[in-house]
Amino acid sequence: MADQAPSVAIRELPREECERLIASHRVGRLGVVVDGQPHILPVNYATPGRGEVVFRTAAGTVLNEASLRQVAFEVDDIDAETHEGWSVLVVGYGRDIGDAIDADSVALRELPLVTWAPGERQQWYKIVPAAVTGRRNSRA
Amino acid sequence: MADQAPSVAIRELPREECERLIASHRVGRLGVVVDGQPHILPVNYATPGRGEVVFRTAAGTVLNEASLRQVAFEVDDIDAETHEGWSVLVVGYGRDIGDAIDADSVALRELPLVTWAPGERQQWYKIVPAAVTGRRNSRA
Repeated sequence: MADQAPSVAIRELPREECERLIASHRVGRLGVVVDGQPHILPVNYATPGRGEVVFRTAAGTVLNEASLRQVAFEVDDIDAETHEGWSVLVVGYGRDIGDAIDADSVALRELPLVTWAPGERQQWYKIVPAAVTGRRNSRA
Repeated sequence: MADQAPSVAIRELPREECERLIASHRVGRLGVVVDGQPHILPVNYATPGRGEVVFRTAAGTVLNEASLRQVAFEVDDIDAETHEGWSVLVVGYGRDIGDAIDADSVALRELPLVTWAPGERQQWYKIVPAAVTGRRNSRA
């Protein structure tokens, strides 16, 4: 624990900067809702363009047609001591692209994302963004 | 992007280890649901004990009596290259302790968490856990 609590001010970020920040990182957190309960799981992701986010995960149990309808995806880089840094939130819908045979889905499955160990259930998904927002915290 | 996708195996963690891992960090992500839409926001937090999580935030607009009824709180430490690391998920309910005058809430508000700049709306909350789960990814 810090002896003194730091003080920070918040600034909203334009969408272009949000997309640039997301593309600069590789681990984000996916948020889905199951029976009214929010869940958050970390995912390794890629940004193929158009604001989309592609990831694969072994944590398939909370991801299904219902829970993919409204998803959140968050990436941040925040200093634990000062709380300075940034965060970006994507809201949109998710799509299971694991078996899709359209050329786009096939190409996305070539992206170099984490492969889960044999026996782990795994699947490919993409997020189509409806809104992308971000904020930066800096010392007040 | 890595040239080759790494491969990792997953192991579930016991609750004691999950609580120890949460206590070792200071920035986590809060998940709430607003009108069916999940939101994720990073928060600076403290762990006063009993599995509880205390945080204050300026992002008050998505936090209200309805959205606090079911919350998720996630902490992780994952290597961007190898995806090795751990994540812990707390699900439970949130409570606004900003104005509460019980001794416990007053004491919690003494915890050294980030103070937002003057003019930023800010509030104190605590999460009472219903379940705490975690997993560790390691090289397969």
